[in-house]
Formats: sequence, structure tokens, C-alpha cells
Amino acid sequence: MTDPLRLGIAGLGTVGTGIVRIVQTHGDLLAARAGRPIVITAVSARSRTKDRGIDLSAYAWESDPTALSARDDVDVVIEVMGGDDGPAKATTEAAIAQGKDVVSANKALLAIHGQALAEAAEAAGRVIRFEAAVAGGIPVVKALTEGLAGNEITRIMGVMNGSCNYILTRMEDAGLTYQEVFDEADALGYLEADPELDVGGIDAGHKLALLSSIAFGTQVDFAGVALEGIGSVTIDDIRQAADMGFKIKLLGVAQLTGRGLEQRMSPCLVPDTSPLGQLSGGTNMVVLEGDAVGQIVLRGAGAGEGPTASAVMSDVMDIARGSRLSTFGQPAKTLRKARAAQAAIAAPYYLRLRLLDKPGALAKVASILGDAGVSIDRMRQYDHKDSAAPVLIVTHKTTRAALDEAIARFDSTGVVTQPPVAIRIETV
Amino acid sequence: MTDPLRLGIAGLGTVGTGIVRIVQTHGDLLAARAGRPIVITAVSARSRTKDRGIDLSAYAWESDPTALSARDDVDVVIEVMGGDDGPAKATTEAAIAQGKDVVSANKALLAIHGQALAEAAEAAGRVIRFEAAVAGGIPVVKALTEGLAGNEITRIMGVMNGSCNYILTRMEDAGLTYQEVFDEADALGYLEADPELDVGGIDAGHKLALLSSIAFGTQVDFAGVALEGIGSVTIDDIRQAADMGFKIKLLGVAQLTGRGLEQRMSPCLVPDTSPLGQLSGGTNMVVLEGDAVGQIVLRGAGAGEGPTASAVMSDVMDIARGSRLSTFGQPAKTLRKARAAQAAIAAPYYLRLRLLDKPGALAKVASILGDAGVSIDRMRQYDHKDSAAPVLIVTHKTTRAALDEAIARFDSTGVVTQPPVAIRIETV
Repeated sequence: MTDPLRLGIAGLGTVGTGIVRIVQTHGDLLAARAGRPIVITAVSARSRTKDRGIDLSAYAWESDPTALSARDDVDVVIEVMGGDDGPAKATTEAAIAQGKDVVSANKALLAIHGQALAEAAEAAGRVIRFEAAVAGGIPVVKALTEGLAGNEITRIMGVMNGSCNYILTRMEDAGLTYQEVFDEADALGYLEADPELDVGGIDAGHKLALLSSIAFGTQVDFAGVALEGIGSVTIDDIRQAADMGFKIKLLGVAQLTGRGLEQRMSPCLVPDTSPLGQLSGGTNMVVLEGDAVGQIVLRGAGAGEGPTASAVMSDVMDIARGSRLSTFGQPAKTLRKARAAQAAIAAPYYLRLRLLDKPGALAKVASILGDAGVSIDRMRQYDHKDSAAPVLIVTHKTTRAALDEAIARFDSTGVVTQPPVAIRIETV
Repeated sequence: MTDPLRLGIAGLGTVGTGIVRIVQTHGDLLAARAGRPIVITAVSARSRTKDRGIDLSAYAWESDPTALSARDDVDVVIEVMGGDDGPAKATTEAAIAQGKDVVSANKALLAIHGQALAEAAEAAGRVIRFEAAVAGGIPVVKALTEGLAGNEITRIMGVMNGSCNYILTRMEDAGLTYQEVFDEADALGYLEADPELDVGGIDAGHKLALLSSIAFGTQVDFAGVALEGIGSVTIDDIRQAADMGFKIKLLGVAQLTGRGLEQRMSPCLVPDTSPLGQLSGGTNMVVLEGDAVGQIVLRGAGAGEGPTASAVMSDVMDIARGSRLSTFGQPAKTLRKARAAQAAIAAPYYLRLRLLDKPGALAKVASILGDAGVSIDRMRQYDHKDSAAPVLIVTHKTTRAALDEAIARFDSTGVVTQPPVAIRIETV
């Protein structure tokens, strides 16, 4: 046994409380594995009097989280307050300035300020680790940074916002509209205070940007993530996609192509027999693809006290065991600036139309698609009671630009009765 | 950049060749991530003249793999020869004795001699790492040892022999017997030179024993794994299990209960909607359960050049980055001796019988089950053309002892026409 590793915890919400519980219940286990005791010496939170169901009496209390950094009895500051600025940023910066290591669960802060923070930490000989910021309890940052360190990463994909996956699954299972399920989820407390962080894809986009940086050796570039939320997904799309053998997921995809770094967080169709297609409810899944390893799929709880605290403790244990790994897997100064790809690479698309039920209608649409270079893989026309027939088309691989060109020309045919819906099909 | 990490590779079969390819193609990437160059200085294999499709001219050649250890220009010996004794053991021991770190893909060697080797390495201040020994490219050793280091592990499960999963999947898909698919797989080169290592569950049992040690802080105890191969699984069982909503998998399960360490590698039924149930073909899957994290599922290629070499490189990169992690996640001297559980904890069972088609036959069987304390969850009797009817029973949770007691008494009824088949249903 060597010296204990002493933790200062900034934030005692769900995650902070979970960390305290693990350290209190598993002291012997942690010490055996780390080769040294892991102890909490100080904590900080907004309310000192709130009952959290845990005994904090043995720990020093700091009402200002940045004061944790100044304490001689803290080696690692754990930032689990959240927020992309304000106290979270100040606490992280103060910790680095005062020579502490940092373990963070803060995806927003790191997705926006990660490069600057990592450079500052590395200049000071300190580490910032963030396993808990991505996909909750799934050890995906570790799998990517270390487990696949011998690979050129070719693509990463992930369903990393449990609330969105819950909403889409529930719409399908219960036959409810997006708005109905949204209201339900909101009432149940499943959504962030600002729900747009969830349903707009921002939260999941933060996570994708962090993984991209590790995967491709590029500076984290959240601004480069093409974001599209799930608000426009209809129950019709879910049902008709299912009819063609697909599920709709809010899917993050990142890949480095000759045309730059492509990062997308948007509703996508995936085959219903694929691991991603079979994922239901609030569970998260990340798919990592490397040139040597092929495809690795990781699945687990993406949020919650236990899973997120487990991820924080993974970083704590690494530091206790002597790891000095760079925040993004290589020194921050060596990360290249990402050049954002101007357009997504070609893919098949799902296209939903309503066509007037009159001779030649389908031919007009098909001809416009053909002229734009979009070829049809499968097509299905459904029964209908009114004057317009629902038509689904699955295209062969095409660019979004070609598809948009065709869609723009549909109007002139006079047979397309409402704006078409186009959703990318991700090959998995 | 600091000093290069210099590798000596013992074994140039599929895996060794894969490692050479990664080091040769990804030199810059590895150096950027490790903060130092990764270089190969010496190699050893049986045949120097065999064409492996790689250029070995820059490396020193040793015809005796133990000689790699004596070289001043080798920091890490990579043992990818295989075999639970002989040259593999001698090479590993020599490496440790001469102050080298070891990266091994050798599950058999470590499952049998792991404790002694780890103690020797740790006494000498050296590390032995073995990511590639378990589940090929899936970074499961890392996920368990590091990613879940804050958890008390409650259970691990895994489909970790791709050949067995291929055989079971193919039997179902093609409607072939075990022997037919076995012969096919053997002809295709999917099986080990001694196929019993695969189909007898030995290879997968080695992997399970290694994971158990990490999970429960116990000395690796392969002798304590209750082994049962897939040779007795029939196409009838596969079909009728499917009819009840299950798949049959060669499933490894390890858990620490009040009655000791339970390690089983045997055919089990799992729900066909579970991740394990949905796994087909040669892919591997490992399920890790911890008290904080809940359930984590990892899926990927369990064998092959790229995936296994990827796993070896994960360990190499860790060593290059300064990790000095203990072989089994905590110092080998602190691992407790496992006390093997005498019997598996209770579970539901699948029971297949053939019953004479005469009044009261089912009642007799049901009454014996009831007397033995085995209660019936679901029962299904099938159409039949001969004098005996196939009957499937899914029991509620019961012990194997109670079930065996009932089965022993079936004979006396005179209505059970052939030995019943009982297969455990693993709750996932």
C-alpha cells in the first residue's frame, strides 16, 4: 500500500452521491485493486442541508467548488456539477492551475472547451479524464482510447441519448405521436431542464464530438457536428420504416474521409436485425470500427447514478494505478484541427411521399429521381382511402445533394401532395 | 518522444503476422498515441523460410523463442505461439527471468499457470498482459479490470468460442445434425487441431477462468470450471427451444455466491430476444454485470488475424504509455484461493421428454416433478406419429439436484421412453 488517493467531489447530485456510495461501500475492494486506498476528503454542492441519504460528516465542506482545488488534502477534483461554463469551468480550470488531476462527467464543458482545458492540463503535467461524459456506464472512452489503440478507426456510431431512444421506442410500441410521448417523458423527469439538449441531439452531439477527437486525432469540434433532432419523426415514419425492415434511431456517426471529418447526429434508419436496430428503451449503444479489429459493439446504461458513478470511478482507479493518459489519447498539442466535411458521404435513403392517385404519377416521380442520378432499390405503395397514396422508396446509395435536387423538382409534377420526408439509412 | 518500445515476437502464425502488419502500417499513429515509437526488433518462429506475405528483413531472427528474452534490444516479449506448456511456457518464464514484460494471447497457458507466472512477474517488477487471450478483439479484459474497477462484479457471462456458436447457428439455420456441421466446420478449418478444445468447451473454459479471476479477485482456477461441450445438443433441442422462445448457446457463466465460486461452461438456453440470444455465427459476446454499472454487453470478432492482433496491440500500447497494471487487476499475491461452489445456483430448466401416449402418463411425470419440488412454468406436448409424444417442460427455478432426483425416478413410471434432456435456462 502506498499513499491514499484523495478525492474532492464538486457536485452532489445523482452522480456525486453515487460516487460517495461506491467509495464508502467498496473501500477494501478499491484499495485491493488500486494498490492504495481511495478516500474522499472534501465535497462541495449548492445545498449543505439537503438529505442525500449518505453520510458526509467525515468530509470537509466547501461551499465554493473552486476552493476544493486549493486544498492540500485533495489530489483529484471530480467535477460532476455539469454546465458548459460557470462553476464547472471555473472549478476545472482552478484544479489544473493548482496542480490537481480532474475527472469529469461534463460532456458539454469538454465538447466546447476540451481542447483548451486539455492543453492547459498537459502543460501543467496534469490529466483530465472523462469516461462518464460519454454513454454513462459503458467504458467506451477506454475501449476507444486504449482497447483499440492499435487501430486506425474507420467509423464510430452511437445511440447515446437514452431519452431520445426511449421516445422513439415508446412511439412505436404505444402508437403515440412524438408530442404525446415527449409530454409523457417530460412529466416523468426523463428530459433535461432544457429538453432541446436531449431531443435536439445536442447532448448526444457533445458525446459524439468527444469520441471523434479520440478516434481521429482531431481537436474536439462540436460546432462541426451536423445536428438534427427527433422532433420531426412521425409515427408514420416509424411504422413504415418498420414495414421495410428498419428502425429509426437518433444515431451519431463520425468518420474521417478524404473530404474531411464527417460528424452527424440525426435520425437514421438502421436494419431492425442489427444490434443498433434491436436496441430499445433508454439503453445506450456505441459501435466502434477499426481497420484491424472490425466492428466492436458496446451496450449498457447511458445514465443513472450507478452507471455514471461507475464510469467516474474507472477514471479515478486509473489515476490511482498511475495512469497519466492524455485526455484525448494523445497529447492535446498534437491533435490536428478538424476540417469538417461539407456533405455526408453517399448512403441509401428512405423517402416517404404522398402521391395523387392518378395515372403516371409514380412515373413522374421515378423519372425525376432517375434524372438526378438517384436509383430506386425498393418501392412500396400503400392502400389509401383519400385521393393520395402513401409511397415509400428505399434508394440505392446516393448523395443528399442529389436527393434534395430531386425533391425540389417534385413540386413541379403536381402529383406530390405534401413535402416528402427523407431519412438516411446507415449501413451497419 | 522518448525511447522506442522494442518488441520481440515469439510466433509468426496468424496473430504474429497481424501484429507485424499493424506495427509496419501504423507506425506514425502508434507513436502519436503512445508518445514514443513502437518498433519490432526480433522475431522467432518455427520456419524461417515460410512466405507470410510480410517483410521480416529488418528484424533479428531467433530460431529459439526463449532467446528473444536474452536480447538487450527487446523490452516486451509477445508470446503468440500457443500451447499450455512447452516453448510458450519456457518463453514466458525466460522473459520474466530476464526482466522483460510479456504480452500473451495464450489462454491455455494462463488459465493453467497464470497464478505462478503472475507472481513471478510481479516479484520481478514485470507485467504480463493478456487481452488477446479472451474473446479476440473485444477489449473485455480491459473493460473488466479497468472500466468496471469501481464495481463489485456480480456475474460474467460469455459466448467466447466462435466455432461452437457457428456450429449451433448453422445447425438451426440449415437443419443439420451436430455431426454434419462438425464435419463441415472441421473441413473448413474452423476447429482447433484437437477439436475437443472447441466443442468440449475447454478453450472457452480457459477464457472464463481468466475473467473470473479478475472479476472476483480469486486465483485463476480452470479446474473449477464445470465443463460440458456441445456434442450432445440435438437439432430437436434447438428447434423446440426456439419454439419456446429460446436459443441454445455454449455459455460461460461465473458468479461468486455464498457457497463459493461458480464457473460453468455449458450449453444453456437464453431468451431469443436477449443480446446473447440474437448472437449468430462466429461472433463473440461477453456480458459483465456490476453492482453499480448494471449490465454491460460487449460484442465483436472473437478470433482472426486483425482482431487478435488488435488486442495484443492494446496491451503493447498500455505498456508503452507506462501502465504497470497487475496481470489479474490486483497483485497476484493478494488473490484468494477460489472455493469452487459444489452446485450451480437455482435456475429454470428446459426439459425434453418422450412420453408413451397413454392416459395418465403426463400426470405421473408431473407428480414426480412436484414431489421433487420442481414446479412447472410452461408445458407443451407435440403432435406425433409413433407411440410416444414429445413433451417440453420449462420449469420454474430449481436446483439441478432436485431435477436430477426427479429424472432418476422417471424410469420407474414406465412411460418415459428415452433418457430426458435437461438444459439450464440462464436468466439474462
